[in-house]
Amino acid sequence: MAKVAILMGSKSDFAVVKPAVTTLKKFGIETEVRVISAHRTPDAAHAFAAEAEANGIEAIICAAGKAAHLGGVIAAYTTLPVIGLPVKTDMMGGLDSLLSIVQMPSGIPVATVGVNGGENAGLLAAQMLALRYPEIGEKLKQFKKQMAEKIAADDAALQEELRAL
Amino acid sequence: MAKVAILMGSKSDFAVVKPAVTTLKKFGIETEVRVISAHRTPDAAHAFAAEAEANGIEAIICAAGKAAHLGGVIAAYTTLPVIGLPVKTDMMGGLDSLLSIVQMPSGIPVATVGVNGGENAGLLAAQMLALRYPEIGEKLKQFKKQMAEKIAADDAALQEELRAL
Amino acid sequence: MAKVAILMGSKSDFAVVKPAVTTLKKFGIETEVRVISAHRTPDAAHAFAAEAEANGIEAIICAAGKAAHLGGVIAAYTTLPVIGLPVKTDMMGGLDSLLSIVQMPSGIPVATVGVNGGENAGLLAAQMLALRYPEIGEKLKQFKKQMAEKIAADDAALQEELRAL
Amino acid sequence: MAKVAILMGSKSDFAVVKPAVTTLKKFGIETEVRVISAHRTPDAAHAFAAEAEANGIEAIICAAGKAAHLGGVIAAYTTLPVIGLPVKTDMMGGLDSLLSIVQMPSGIPVATVGVNGGENAGLLAAQMLALRYPEIGEKLKQFKKQMAEKIAADDAALQEELRAL
Amino acid sequence: MAKVAILMGSKSDFAVVKPAVTTLKKFGIETEVRVISAHRTPDAAHAFAAEAEANGIEAIICAAGKAAHLGGVIAAYTTLPVIGLPVKTDMMGGLDSLLSIVQMPSGIPVATVGVNGGENAGLLAAQMLALRYPEIGEKLKQFKKQMAEKIAADDAALQEELRAL
Amino acid sequence: MAKVAILMGSKSDFAVVKPAVTTLKKFGIETEVRVISAHRTPDAAHAFAAEAEANGIEAIICAAGKAAHLGGVIAAYTTLPVIGLPVKTDMMGGLDSLLSIVQMPSGIPVATVGVNGGENAGLLAAQMLALRYPEIGEKLKQFKKQMAEKIAADDAALQEELRAL
Amino acid sequence: MAKVAILMGSKSDFAVVKPAVTTLKKFGIETEVRVISAHRTPDAAHAFAAEAEANGIEAIICAAGKAAHLGGVIAAYTTLPVIGLPVKTDMMGGLDSLLSIVQMPSGIPVATVGVNGGENAGLLAAQMLALRYPEIGEKLKQFKKQMAEKIAADDAALQEELRAL
Amino acid sequence: MAKVAILMGSKSDFAVVKPAVTTLKKFGIETEVRVISAHRTPDAAHAFAAEAEANGIEAIICAAGKAAHLGGVIAAYTTLPVIGLPVKTDMMGGLDSLLSIVQMPSGIPVATVGVNGGENAGLLAAQMLALRYPEIGEKLKQFKKQMAEKIAADDAALQEELRAL
Repeated sequence: MAKVAILMGSKSDFAVVKPAVTTLKKFGIETEVRVISAHRTPDAAHAFAAEAEANGIEAIICAAGKAAHLGGVIAAYTTLPVIGLPVKTDMMGGLDSLLSIVQMPSGIPVATVGVNGGENAGLLAAQMLALRYPEIGEKLKQFKKQMAEKIAADDAALQEELRAL
Repeated sequence: MAKVAILMGSKSDFAVVKPAVTTLKKFGIETEVRVISAHRTPDAAHAFAAEAEANGIEAIICAAGKAAHLGGVIAAYTTLPVIGLPVKTDMMGGLDSLLSIVQMPSGIPVATVGVNGGENAGLLAAQMLALRYPEIGEKLKQFKKQMAEKIAADDAALQEELRAL
Repeated sequence: MAKVAILMGSKSDFAVVKPAVTTLKKFGIETEVRVISAHRTPDAAHAFAAEAEANGIEAIICAAGKAAHLGGVIAAYTTLPVIGLPVKTDMMGGLDSLLSIVQMPSGIPVATVGVNGGENAGLLAAQMLALRYPEIGEKLKQFKKQMAEKIAADDAALQEELRAL
Repeated sequence: MAKVAILMGSKSDFAVVKPAVTTLKKFGIETEVRVISAHRTPDAAHAFAAEAEANGIEAIICAAGKAAHLGGVIAAYTTLPVIGLPVKTDMMGGLDSLLSIVQMPSGIPVATVGVNGGENAGLLAAQMLALRYPEIGEKLKQFKKQMAEKIAADDAALQEELRAL
Repeated sequence: MAKVAILMGSKSDFAVVKPAVTTLKKFGIETEVRVISAHRTPDAAHAFAAEAEANGIEAIICAAGKAAHLGGVIAAYTTLPVIGLPVKTDMMGGLDSLLSIVQMPSGIPVATVGVNGGENAGLLAAQMLALRYPEIGEKLKQFKKQMAEKIAADDAALQEELRAL
Repeated sequence: MAKVAILMGSKSDFAVVKPAVTTLKKFGIETEVRVISAHRTPDAAHAFAAEAEANGIEAIICAAGKAAHLGGVIAAYTTLPVIGLPVKTDMMGGLDSLLSIVQMPSGIPVATVGVNGGENAGLLAAQMLALRYPEIGEKLKQFKKQMAEKIAADDAALQEELRAL
Repeated sequence: MAKVAILMGSKSDFAVVKPAVTTLKKFGIETEVRVISAHRTPDAAHAFAAEAEANGIEAIICAAGKAAHLGGVIAAYTTLPVIGLPVKTDMMGGLDSLLSIVQMPSGIPVATVGVNGGENAGLLAAQMLALRYPEIGEKLKQFKKQMAEKIAADDAALQEELRAL
Repeated sequence: MAKVAILMGSKSDFAVVKPAVTTLKKFGIETEVRVISAHRTPDAAHAFAAEAEANGIEAIICAAGKAAHLGGVIAAYTTLPVIGLPVKTDMMGGLDSLLSIVQMPSGIPVATVGVNGGENAGLLAAQMLALRYPEIGEKLKQFKKQMAEKIAADDAALQEELRAL
């Protein structure tokens, strides 16, 4: 079964992480959700990353804020794709988190999504896993269609409201 | 055979794109490299994205600068993973390119690497494809080992130089 | 009759868009207000832009936030003037939206107004249409005079308040 | 005959302005190109803006850098559409010029293009004038087609080069 | 008698301007406080600046936000010292206001204080006028002493609080 | 005789400072130009500021880069007007210098000019001194007229060049 | 006994400073907490810094916001290690405070921690003092272990919550 | 004997690191200079940090650029003071490096110096070690005096040059 790990540097980041968990479940992907800090529990981070592939994990989402090193630290110990999820901060709305995650040196990529982009982190993991699990790909196509329908419905609702104005 | 498309919005971006091509070749991954502009050839972009999966493409790298829409436009028409490669500009070293690519709305992720991060774009694609092609995963592990050896060799060389100082 | 389209990437942007609608109505300009997403409903965006001119539309306002691609995507399919309206975000107050809209590559301009500048988007469209409809030009001159009178009245009111201090 | 004014705050900005002049000529639009400074020749700026419409001018491009007030000052005295062209500076690549131009208060829009976007300033003016002069609209469609052909040609050339690699 | 004008682009800026008024009064300096907009009432701005010196005004404080052109426009018409007071905005906390005011081209300085620095704008005007009115200089020295005493008193109070902790 | 001090934190800043010196001389103002560092020679800075007024100095220009504390340190010891001249650095074109100078706490203003704005620092000092020395005010009016003539001449020259194109 | 001074430029910064005080007490380090302003009480700052070492102080934490000069001013008068603690402001979340503190010229370092990083300022001081007092080093190791245990406990708690979901 | 480690993430950072080495030698402090990458040789980083104290190292300088994780990773494994040295990049002059280093989460400080501040990194380490080695403190005082003399000499030289002008 498809399986994605979702790590956060602090339990307080769970609100940002939750849409990733929900999204992955919607696509039938098993999740392992963990509080692991690159700075406070570096050994746990090391161990988790080094054993992730053997444990059946196929992609790792890392949420962190400020000097957000979690993605880079995990990526240092695995060749699985690592998705970086920058958490919004007071410093220009999370620019510190974003740059700390996306500007990785050559050789160790971290696939970065937008600030607080929990749902997108989940979707990106699903897109990756669809390379191995065709049924996830089918669900992604379904999801894309539903998004379009939602926008069309919003558009129709807006026309109603405008008429009423 | 594994296959990745690499699109650039302008032929002048090829210097930034080239390390992605080289990297993918090193991992035995076929590449289709194209100049396709989200703004100047939107029909080509649409057609390419819509048919990419059917054409055997498994991930798409999109390099663009300034108001860099190529990744988002491609991602709108496919559920394949799309990797965004921001090209350095004069505007704060490419912050415009980076934000235009990474800050995607919920539902349409673009996996963003650092500014001018061509090699990392290629490596990230390889990591994704390794989910389907185990031999790529083996090569990634080999590559990681070589990077570590290169750093160790650099460290040894530095010790020599310091002694000579 | 003069006619301007106002598109927004998400129905939640309507609060930012509304002053544009109100302004255009004040100048006697018909509006078509739509929820159309560059990323979620790319086909609707394509169709709308490609047929806009034939449908009597003379300028298109595109409101979007974050990696705001709507203006660029619409501009790719039409030679009508496209006005970009950046929506405020948490990322430095909308700098991401602004740069994603204004920094367009050569060949495809998007006329950008300030962040959350809904009224200005409407006024700019009116100024453009005044090139064809002289009566709009007259109304713009009237509007300019009223703005000046409003400032003069504010100044007079302030003098009263200062005297009372 | 269609006519656009192009103002620059300093003669040294002419290199940035030139593509706008060239572009407008290509579309058969007459240009009046002037060095007029909002700060050093405010009376000339006032006079030019106040009389522009009477002098047959239909849109005004204003190029300026740093605390770039020219567009706002001109827009204060006319209801013609004013296009702001931010000139690149050392301060974060022209962010000062961009913000000084685009962040106009409600009531006085300046249609802003990207930093050093001379060609786009010219194209935007042409798009506006096409509302009155259908022949310009035809040329714009032609221009759009040529851009697409240029990208397709670049793509073909790249394929040649890649084969030769 | 010493006299300073305080202009604001919009009556809503009065909260930011008020500490400047209070400060100047504290130093016995007459103030003329006006709502004058560079963009909405350019003629009033021109007239005010051109006649300021003849009207006995010796320095002019200009408060404005976003694309804050008021200081530059006033400075274009007078050689009196102009003090720019940037008003806080949503765009990075007023960086747009600050850059639009401080980055003036060579030849037309605007003496800029910090964002929302109303008191400092007033003090700076007082320091300038002290060059002509020695009694203001005496009051400034007194004020400086009182500030130091206030800090010393705060320090003493903190020691009390710390002991109580 | 009118007298202005110009301090720089490092002798290497002299190129930025020189236009201030030249400008002040042009207005017949005596200058005292010094290398004094807030961090390396704090006692010299203290002594200079504390005795400046007694030494006949009427305004102090302080040029510094990066964490530019010179203006604030001088302003702490005097009530003379202090003009801050931010020196361009590699950090976003001098944004560090600018913010370190302009964002002074309430009570201690530093009149800040644009990054590398040496001429404007000199002109601002001259405008301040004109409050005491009417002949400087006359020269400032002359200078303003010459700037306008220079722009008019540039405009005329451009017309020639355009005709020759 | 180990002793650290904690200075703040304004009593209102105490909330940011308090975690530093608490942290140092936890490590058995004596603190001297003072309100001393680089700009309002420069003589007190000078005196404090010049006598700090003789008074048994071994490191100095300086908290300040905006144009935050306190750290630099203190460091100018002592060779004790100075720790800069930037206070959050409205200007991009404290980027002004951060740059004003960290970008010190060569020769006068200020050891800077993150914006509002009071606890880290305290910990950094403790790490420095551990070079002289081995018992502080022991406590730091203990603290590090407790942090890891806290994260592990958070992780365990999260697993509970996820099961309950 | 006093001993400081200096780590760099890439051998190409040596130019930035060199002034730190030179400075420490000047103070008679032994250095261990190493190329160790947080991302490419994480095991070496872990081992080095975990054994640093036992190996007689008393402070660790970590130079890195872009998503600069080296300081944070080292700090995760030791309670020795870690000094972060941000390396200049193309992204806004090193703002990415600076934020990635300085914005550490609570509990794991990294003492950050300015971008490319190699000499200051060395001096800060010396100031820390002076807490244990009084002779280093004496040398720091000597160094401070020499800096002041250098500025005084520069000032004197400038007076000569000004006279010759």
